[in-house]
Amino acid sequence: MNYKIALIRGDGIGPEVVDEAVGVLNTVAEKFGHQVEYVDVLLGGCATDAVGKSYPDGTAERCKTCDAVLLGAVGGPKWGADKPAEQRPETALLALRKDLGLYANLRPASLRPAMTDACPLKKETADKGIDLMMVRELTGGIYFGKRNKYQTEDRGMEATDLMAYSEQEIERIGRRAFELARLRRGKVSSVDKANVLETSRLWRNVMHRLAAEYPDVQYEDVLVDNCAMQLVRDPGQFDVVVTENMFGDILSDEASMVTGSIGLLPSASIGDGAPGLYEPIHGSAPDIAGQDKANPIATILSVAMMFRYSFQRAAEADAIERAVDAVLAEGWRTPDIAKPGEKAVGTREMGRLIREKV
Amino acid sequence: MNYKIALIRGDGIGPEVVDEAVGVLNTVAEKFGHQVEYVDVLLGGCATDAVGKSYPDGTAERCKTCDAVLLGAVGGPKWGADKPAEQRPETALLALRKDLGLYANLRPASLRPAMTDACPLKKETADKGIDLMMVRELTGGIYFGKRNKYQTEDRGMEATDLMAYSEQEIERIGRRAFELARLRRGKVSSVDKANVLETSRLWRNVMHRLAAEYPDVQYEDVLVDNCAMQLVRDPGQFDVVVTENMFGDILSDEASMVTGSIGLLPSASIGDGAPGLYEPIHGSAPDIAGQDKANPIATILSVAMMFRYSFQRAAEADAIERAVDAVLAEGWRTPDIAKPGEKAVGTREMGRLIREKV
Ligand SMILES: CC(C)[C@H](C(=O)O)[C@@H](O)C(=O)O
Ligand SMILES: CC(C)[C@H](C(=O)O)[C@@H](O)C(=O)O
Repeated sequence: MNYKIALIRGDGIGPEVVDEAVGVLNTVAEKFGHQVEYVDVLLGGCATDAVGKSYPDGTAERCKTCDAVLLGAVGGPKWGADKPAEQRPETALLALRKDLGLYANLRPASLRPAMTDACPLKKETADKGIDLMMVRELTGGIYFGKRNKYQTEDRGMEATDLMAYSEQEIERIGRRAFELARLRRGKVSSVDKANVLETSRLWRNVMHRLAAEYPDVQYEDVLVDNCAMQLVRDPGQFDVVVTENMFGDILSDEASMVTGSIGLLPSASIGDGAPGLYEPIHGSAPDIAGQDKANPIATILSVAMMFRYSFQRAAEADAIERAVDAVLAEGWRTPDIAKPGEKAVGTREMGRLIREKV
Repeated sequence: MNYKIALIRGDGIGPEVVDEAVGVLNTVAEKFGHQVEYVDVLLGGCATDAVGKSYPDGTAERCKTCDAVLLGAVGGPKWGADKPAEQRPETALLALRKDLGLYANLRPASLRPAMTDACPLKKETADKGIDLMMVRELTGGIYFGKRNKYQTEDRGMEATDLMAYSEQEIERIGRRAFELARLRRGKVSSVDKANVLETSRLWRNVMHRLAAEYPDVQYEDVLVDNCAMQLVRDPGQFDVVVTENMFGDILSDEASMVTGSIGLLPSASIGDGAPGLYEPIHGSAPDIAGQDKANPIATILSVAMMFRYSFQRAAEADAIERAVDAVLAEGWRTPDIAKPGEKAVGTREMGRLIREKV
């Protein structure tokens, strides 16, 4: 096959981890007989520095000429919350998700076999295993709602953010979750705050309708505050967890940390038709940028998700995941996952080791 | 002193745990020479059953004649999200908080000395200790914003919830946090999502202004997704954590679970002037209601918070907390905190043991 892939190297450690992921991608392509072409796309803080805005004109169009997008990381304290919106990397991320229609964010939170002792939870809990898939709605809710700020008469300034969801938005993300559950352990946990929020009550109604359409999938409602607790108490109880944008932001980060392997976790953001976007869940870590210290595994595993979800190529995805597990099983570690005293390898060496095993 | 206390026994295990807390309160009053008078207040699912609405007319007025309110627990599946708002227990809780002006919710999440092995985190982390105070804004934000629901032309129904915050609302909760930090370890972590939300940017501005007023308090901004991770990775890093209503709902439950002792954790909801409200953080647990199985400790420790925050009586508060710790140190456990095979005592026996130690 021929694949055209947009590369958003981004800020901080982004370029380094993308380099290693591209290396692995090329090795896999060669092994399986694919042709890959790359298109560089400028976005994030580096774009602000280069052209004055984090989301240059034509970004989405450039991405749309490709079959998938691979992103390293964007952001950093240099382009903080005090900067105008068009200079902030977050603005670009949110705009790109919206313009590409990437409404479903898939974030596996699983303990890799060689990494169970990284889990911050008690050994009994880690030994039971953690293998859940967070499905976060990514283009609706309060992160995309109308914002406002005005002077009041007696309470100083006031600010507002609007959370909104339509049935259509809820249904399409819900359907993704039920379909995924069928390919996994057959359980969907839908997270909301239906005892308070109107959007959550609509969310719950739509999910119940879908649950009736998928009688083979086990379904439960979980309140968001309860879910935050259950992820700590017994994460092994979850299979697919589906929730709205902001709850998903919070809970998927919590779930990731519960695995203890933030540096290893990939993500996929997909829509209907448009190119999917694949990126590690970790940030741009400007403090270690350019020092050959970053862990490229999460970006490499994002390439595996790309093969699985955008190209429907499970064999290639499996090959990458197996290579990563083999390297970890041999004891190779980047500094972020090395135990005190353990010798660690750099970004490039980790990339090379994984390419070798593919 | 003379204290007049409103009792909201509520639903499920509420009445049982309130009974034991009242027992301890009476013992403490006797020992320290106070007179206590009680006023029963009907609220929650039991109120819906009795008079058709969860928040009967005059509830706030009745509470306002008292010096403090002690609440057991309200809610249950019987009065779920499918019921009209005025029948839902949550509606009553939210209305009571608003009507009494209880804008500050204090939720200590700490490991009691005898209970460190209940902590679901690795032993190393638990041994470092967890002793943080969540300060949740309780009468603003999206839980109190305008709600709407309407038919769209092409996306089915749409629902909205508005998150709003004024400078005045943010400042008063912020000030509470800084004042509390001065009495504790001198650190405030303020949680927001200022890289996306307008309300969070206003929140952060006000907090920075306060931080300048309290130069003796160490201050940091933490993004909500990051905070959800840090609470799992290293909860010992936090002293006072202050945040808006919904983030606080999610994070304080997460923090509680991180201590492993949900059944032991109390809370205080306070305003300026009006009676404070004290309640366990656990729910109404209808499945074990009336079986003498519920753990009364969280409600008993809520009475300690009442003495500390509403009556400015640290000696009485200390006496209750010491009694609880002594009983736990002797190995007494209710079923929820007993290890497999360990013999457990009932609600009433636990109450008696604690009274005996006061
Ligand atoms: C940077 C921010 C807009 C973003 C989000 O919350 O969506 C990030 O936290 C993430 O999870 O990708
Ligand atoms: C029941 C609900 C309204 C309430 C809240 O979220 O405030 C509860 O979760 C709590 O934390 O006291």
